[in-house]
Formats: sequence, C-alpha cells, structure tokens
Amino acid sequence: MPDPRFYSVAGPFTLDELAEISGAEASNGKSRMFSDISPLSTAGSDHVGFLDNRKYLDVFSKTSAGVCLVRPDHAAKAPDGMALLVTDEPYRGYARVAAAFYPRENNAHGLDGADGIDKSAMIGKGCQIAPSAVIGAKAEIGEGCRIGPHSAIGPGVVVGPGGVIASNVTLTHCIIGANAVIHPGVRVGQDGFGFAIASGPDGHLKVPQLGRVVIGENVEIGANSTIDRGSAPDTVIGEGTKIDNLVQIGHNVRIGMNCVVVSQVGISGSTAIGDFVVLGGQAGLAGHLAIGDGVRVAAKAGVIGDIEPGLTVGGFPARPRTEWLRSIAVLKRLAKKKDS
Amino acid sequence: MPDPRFYSVAGPFTLDELAEISGAEASNGKSRMFSDISPLSTAGSDHVGFLDNRKYLDVFSKTSAGVCLVRPDHAAKAPDGMALLVTDEPYRGYARVAAAFYPRENNAHGLDGADGIDKSAMIGKGCQIAPSAVIGAKAEIGEGCRIGPHSAIGPGVVVGPGGVIASNVTLTHCIIGANAVIHPGVRVGQDGFGFAIASGPDGHLKVPQLGRVVIGENVEIGANSTIDRGSAPDTVIGEGTKIDNLVQIGHNVRIGMNCVVVSQVGISGSTAIGDFVVLGGQAGLAGHLAIGDGVRVAAKAGVIGDIEPGLTVGGFPARPRTEWLRSIAVLKRLAKKKDS
Amino acid sequence: MPDPRFYSVAGPFTLDELAEISGAEASNGKSRMFSDISPLSTAGSDHVGFLDNRKYLDVFSKTSAGVCLVRPDHAAKAPDGMALLVTDEPYRGYARVAAAFYPRENNAHGLDGADGIDKSAMIGKGCQIAPSAVIGAKAEIGEGCRIGPHSAIGPGVVVGPGGVIASNVTLTHCIIGANAVIHPGVRVGQDGFGFAIASGPDGHLKVPQLGRVVIGENVEIGANSTIDRGSAPDTVIGEGTKIDNLVQIGHNVRIGMNCVVVSQVGISGSTAIGDFVVLGGQAGLAGHLAIGDGVRVAAKAGVIGDIEPGLTVGGFPARPRTEWLRSIAVLKRLAKKKDS
Repeated sequence: MPDPRFYSVAGPFTLDELAEISGAEASNGKSRMFSDISPLSTAGSDHVGFLDNRKYLDVFSKTSAGVCLVRPDHAAKAPDGMALLVTDEPYRGYARVAAAFYPRENNAHGLDGADGIDKSAMIGKGCQIAPSAVIGAKAEIGEGCRIGPHSAIGPGVVVGPGGVIASNVTLTHCIIGANAVIHPGVRVGQDGFGFAIASGPDGHLKVPQLGRVVIGENVEIGANSTIDRGSAPDTVIGEGTKIDNLVQIGHNVRIGMNCVVVSQVGISGSTAIGDFVVLGGQAGLAGHLAIGDGVRVAAKAGVIGDIEPGLTVGGFPARPRTEWLRSIAVLKRLAKKKDS
Repeated sequence: MPDPRFYSVAGPFTLDELAEISGAEASNGKSRMFSDISPLSTAGSDHVGFLDNRKYLDVFSKTSAGVCLVRPDHAAKAPDGMALLVTDEPYRGYARVAAAFYPRENNAHGLDGADGIDKSAMIGKGCQIAPSAVIGAKAEIGEGCRIGPHSAIGPGVVVGPGGVIASNVTLTHCIIGANAVIHPGVRVGQDGFGFAIASGPDGHLKVPQLGRVVIGENVEIGANSTIDRGSAPDTVIGEGTKIDNLVQIGHNVRIGMNCVVVSQVGISGSTAIGDFVVLGGQAGLAGHLAIGDGVRVAAKAGVIGDIEPGLTVGGFPARPRTEWLRSIAVLKRLAKKKDS
Repeated sequence: MPDPRFYSVAGPFTLDELAEISGAEASNGKSRMFSDISPLSTAGSDHVGFLDNRKYLDVFSKTSAGVCLVRPDHAAKAPDGMALLVTDEPYRGYARVAAAFYPRENNAHGLDGADGIDKSAMIGKGCQIAPSAVIGAKAEIGEGCRIGPHSAIGPGVVVGPGGVIASNVTLTHCIIGANAVIHPGVRVGQDGFGFAIASGPDGHLKVPQLGRVVIGENVEIGANSTIDRGSAPDTVIGEGTKIDNLVQIGHNVRIGMNCVVVSQVGISGSTAIGDFVVLGGQAGLAGHLAIGDGVRVAAKAGVIGDIEPGLTVGGFPARPRTEWLRSIAVLKRLAKKKDS
C-alpha cells in the first residue's frame, strides 16, 4: 500500500465504475466495492490487481485480490470467487484505474501552494534554513540540518540529522538518513518514467508512481543528479554510497552500501546493485539486472546482463575486463594489417 | 520574423551602419534602411540575409532580401538591385548584425526584474501557483495548472490548461500544449549552442537565437532535462511524446508524436525525428539527421546518418540491429581465438 | 592556502590533537602547534602534509612541512626535525585532519542563512537583479550584470561586468570574468567528488575540497551543466570557451581559451585541456590527462590517454580519426563475411 505520508487514495469504486474507468468488461460480483490497487502477491479482497505478463499466471491463480484486470485467455485461471475486469490491454486498464485511485490532482508534485515552512513540519534543533526554502506539511527535518536557498522539500519528506541540503534542490516522496550531503540542483523523488506504451494512436498512458526514495546514512549526491521514486516498491540508496554529478537513477533501483557512482552514469529501472560497487563515468546499466558486491564497471561501459560479485567489466556489451581489452587489441591489430 | 511575444527588434540601420557593425564593405544603395534580419528564402526588401555555404547559391540568386552578407567571389551571383555587404566571413558578420538587431540587453533571459506574477500575465481559473513562482509579462497560464515553488516562467510563455510544472523549473521562449508534465529542474527555451566559430584568436561569436520551443499536448519532460530554443525556426516536441531525465535536445530539433526518449539521450541541432520513435538511454544523435517513423534506437547508440522508418538500430556508428549484434559476435570470437 | 574569501580555517591543533583526530601515532615534537594543511611542495613549518603515493617520496624528503602523515615504511625518509603522524592510511588520516581544519559546519554550502542581497555584497552600477535572487556576504557583482530569479550566489563570489546569470543558477567558491553567460540551472563551485576510499566497512571519507573555480572572460556555460571546484588547486575555464548543456567538469580540470565543449561531455578530475580544443557531444575524458591545443575529439569518444596538439581522435579508447574509422570498416567487413 502506498505510504500515506505521501499518497492519499481516492475511491472506493464499484466494479461497474472500475469497468467504465478501465474500458474492461466486468464479470462476477458487480455489487462489490474496491478501495485500492495492489500487486497480486500482497493484494487483499478489496484490492484491484492486474495480470499482463503470462509469467505471473501462477501468482494470479493464487492471489487474494478481489478483482483483477486480465486478458480473455487468462481469465479461466482466476481463483474462485474473484471478480474480473476482462480486456485486451490489462496494463493500460490498470494505468487508468491507478490514476483514478491516485489522481494527479491530489498527487501532482506535492508542493502546489507551498511557501516557507509549513506549520505542521517538524524542524530539529540547530537547523539553519534559508528563508527562501520551502518545506511542506508534516516534513521532518533532523537536528543540525542546513538547507540552502530556493530548495523545495515536499510534504512528508524526512531528512535525518546533520543533513546538508544545498540550494535549488528538490526533495519529494523520500526518506533520507543522517548526515546526507545533497548538492545543488539535485532532484529526488519525482515520478519514474513509467508508461503503458501505446499500441495505437491514442498515446502512452502514465502509470501513477506510488513508491518512495529511501536513502541511507552518509550518502552524498552530486549536483543536478536525478533519482526517481519507485513505482510501487521503493528506490533505495544504501548507507555510505557516494554519487557524483548528473547521475540518473531510475525507479525501483536498489544500490547497496558504500558504492561509488561516478558522473553521468545512468541506471535503468529495477536494477539491483550490491555493496562496494564502483560505476565509472558515463557507464549505463540496463533495467532489471543484478550486479554483485564489489563489482567494478569501467567508464562508458554498457551493462546489459547480470554481473557476478567481484568482477571488473568494461565495454559495450560489458564483459570481463581482460576479455574487453583483448577485443580492443585484436581490432587494433586487424585495422593495422589492413593498412599494410 | 522572430515571434514578437519573445523578441523586440532594435534598428532600423542604414547600410553604412551595418557595414560598420559587421566589418564588411558596403556596395549598392548606401542610403537604404534595413529593419530586420531574415533567412534568404523568406526575406523582404528591408531585410538583411547572409550567404555562407555555396550550396545555397541558387537561393541567393533568387532572394528578395534587400541586402546580403556575402563573400567576394559570390557577389556576382546577387540579384539585380540588391545591396551587398562583402566580407570574407559572412557568418561572423551576420552574428554581429543579428546581435545589433537583437541585443542581449533586451533579450538576456527575459526574467531580469521578475518577481511574483506580472500584472499583465493571464492566469486561468483554478490554477495553484506557489507564492515563490515567478511569471513574466503577458505569459498565459491555462486553467487548472499547478506551478511549484521557485519556478520561473518567462514573459510571453504559454502553458496550456492542466499543466503540471514542478519546482525549480525554468520556461522561457516557449509555447506548451495542454496537460504537460514538466518535472523539477527542467530548462526549456534557453539559447541554443550557436556560435560563429573563431578562425583566429578573436574568439567565437554568439549568434542570437531567435526561435522558440513549441511543445504539443500530453508531453512529459523528465527532471533536469534541457530543451534549447530554435535559432530561427522552432524546436518542436510532438503531442504525447515522453522525455525522461537529463535529456538534451538541441536547437531546431523536431520530434514527432508519441515518441519515447529515455534518460541521458542527446539530440543535436536540427535533427528531425518521426512519430512513435524510441530512443534508448544515453543514445546520441548527430545534427541535421532524418529519423523515420517507428525507428528504435538501442541504448548508447551513436546515430550519425539518416534512418529509414521502422528500423531498429544500435552501436556506434548505429547500424541495423542484426548487423550490430553480428559485429559484436564476430569480435568476441576473434578475441577468443587469439587466446587459444 | 585556501582562499580566505571562501574558507575559514579552524585550529590551530597540537600534534597530540592531530594524532587523535587522524588515528595516527605521533612522534617528534609533541608540543608543537599546527595552523593549516598544505601540499608538501609549498608547506611551511606550521603546516600538516601527507605522503600517500611513493612517487612523491622525493618531494617528501625535501619538504618544509612541520608534520606529515606517512606510512611506517616511508618515515625514515623524513627531513630532519619534521614531526610525524605515522599510520597505515595516510590519506584517510589527512581527510580527517583536513575536516578538522575546515569543518563542514563552517563550509557547508556557504548560503545557509542567505536571503536577498547581503549588506556587505558589492553591486556594480546598472545591474538588474531579480528580487528573489540571493547574494552572499562580500560577493562582488560587476557593472551591468543581469541576475535571474531564484539564483543563489555564494559569499565571496566575483561576477565580472556584463555577466548574464539566468534563473535557478547556483554559484559558489568561484571567480567569473567579464561578459559571462550562465544559463539556467548551472551549478558552479560545489565540492568535487573527492573521497578517501574505504578499504574496509567503515566507509569512504570525504576529503574537504578547498579550491575554487576560476572562469575567464566571455565564457558561456549551458543549462544544467556542473563545474566542481578544485580540491586544493583551482578548476579553471579559459577565456572565450563555450560549454553546452549538461556538461560535467570535475575538480582541478583546466580548460584553455576558446574551446568548444558540446552537450553531455564529461571531463574527469585534474585533466588539462589546451586552447581551441573541440570536444564532441557525450565524449568522456579520464582524469589526469594532457590534451594539446587544437585537438578535436569526436562525439561519444572515450579519451584515456594524453593527446598531442592538433590531432583529431575518436572511438573508445580514443585514437587518431583515420585509425578509428579503419577499425570500424574492418569490423563491418568481417561481420559481412561471416554472413556469406
């Protein structure tokens, strides 16, 4: 369930209302009411789930969700008594339903009318906060924090004690541990890049992003870097990890402890990175990967597969360093031979 | 002619004044006055044009421009009755003339003295605007927009109804369609990277950038992305296109409808992109290219030539995906062989 | 010695105090007091230095520093009469000592309580400064500058006459020459990415960054670009150099005159670049390199070695252009052959 610090849910909706919102056909239990969306694995009887990828058919067949958006050919696998919303495009239907429960109007950027420090914000002792900084409702700023001019801290955000938030920073939908250093222009907690991609001319549908960013102690984040919040799980940055300037971290990424992420790295959604990992400048990591503890990725590498702990990789596609260097040497030799 | 919403022209100038400003030698019609600059193809009799690249000689020979900056060896091709400003460096001369018509003092960033909401700005019903946001003269904000703290919206900017402008955003010299989502730290409308490059020690000359950014409906732009305004034509983002974080879009780029541009992509000036194009993370596109509808560019690809509609390409230089994958496989095999 | 415009030193400390701060063992002259840190080459008798890399053993043996953090096996090379702080991790010890002399509390981001224009700031004639801009103590703004809304200029910063500072810009710890154009969202002067990397689980230690950014006349810096200040020497951008959007420039980088740095380039720490150099979009340069005058680096190139003046290079690792193009052609041929 989305963290109520950051999200307020609309609804509840009847099955008929959900059918109209999603464009799906309702069956089984039209009179019921539903109060929230949920992943199938954790859903309760008043929750709406969806099945888009057949690899989750097994989870679907055992879910406790009250209703599920599902393709016609998967409907027969539904648990007994579950209501159904049958459609050829369950994910697009889900995007519409999620937007009904979490409308943009309530959850745009959380700072609409914000000015100065909200009365309900809790500010620790010994903080120095620039008069132009904006701090939203129920935010919690720990003792001894310093917050620079023109920074905006959204409602419900937690900044641990000793944090240094520079100027022109935006923090929303996030929980930040003690002694963080957040450099100017950093953006934490905005929507991840999640859309139900258009199959036709009616355009990509935004999928509400309902997770958070959770940042450990002693983390440093470089100027103008961007960290998107999770889609439903959280985006997580482990204790002691140091992130350089202009780095992009996508939704649901998990970075371990004491990693070093050099400038202009990009990490795609849902990739999980171990502890003490070093990512060289301008490296790029595809989504949904597992990068082991102690891995070192060379600058400009393009990582498109999982990496075992302790390996050093380089190149694109990234491969063990010696293999990468050998392929460079081979190509150099061939180019010279051609010349003679 | 530059949009008077955003640009105010100085002058007019006599031919002699233009000769002095540009360092060129005037001939033919010294007593005439000129009121603006213009591309040769659309110029009128009181406009100043320039010919730098001989591939436009034909356009030059037929232009209606009143005067043209031109190299000595091209001067003979001028239409009858046209005044001439003859110089070895027409583009540098043009940069100086354009800066005289559109001086930086009048057109720096359009927000010099701005504070709060200008009285001449038009604000639609139901907007929520943070008190620290700045909105310039004659800007138009549609109904139901939400504008976050510390955002700056320049004079004349149009934001369509239902727009969500997050915090710390800068919008100048742009027209934005309905239901846009502009994430924190986005910069739209600043000068493109246009200079008359130095041939000697006297340095690169800034060429005034006099176009706009025109953004369609339902466009989303990710945190800290940058979209430069056009140099004379506009930079255009088509309806429904979704742009991720830290993306760079150069001046005069045209992106079609419903494209997906993943994080850290860079698109160089004047490249034209069709509809439903997908650009993978960290891909780079050279300038002045034509990318067809439905093209898919793999992450980290470097595109240096036009791409036919529907192709999937990868690598650097980008080539059809199967060819790219094969070259990776071949190199891998060779590196292994070397080993044995 | 760090520029007192930007840094105020704590201390002095006794040798015993330094031993406790650094975790090193003190020997020779326990009663002495030390007033600052310094590189070995310029240190005086009341300064603390460190020796981490044996290639500086010779400098160490001749230094005038009063005390030095040093490994046990290098201690014997110390000049006569020097006090010693012996430790297995001199650089981590130095990081702790430097943080004691320059505590984060005094030097966080220099803008803690800033609001409006500080009374001690010097503002030249004819400036236009947006009411929401913040200008710190003793900053100097030259004649005729324009400063946009929500920009933050730290204490002691110098902006030369005729500067255009757009909106949402952050400038700290920097000296900027005349006629600069600083686009929206630029960050100049924040900490470089300097850490004493963890050998164990106790995490990376921040090394105080005590240099400045020095920017020449007629420099232009594109939207959302980031320029870190030096660690002890300065980061330097030469006169007339033009920098595009989303460029990253690391600490201690030196860029010459009239260079052109295209969007999304990254330059790692301590690399020195000559005059009239062109760096193509998304190119990356490793640290500690020497790039000669007139070098041209192709887009997306990865430069990992020094480059002689006048060369054009491309690819990764970057090599002379013809060699790079030949290796592309060879690989293409091989991939085709495989096919037949």
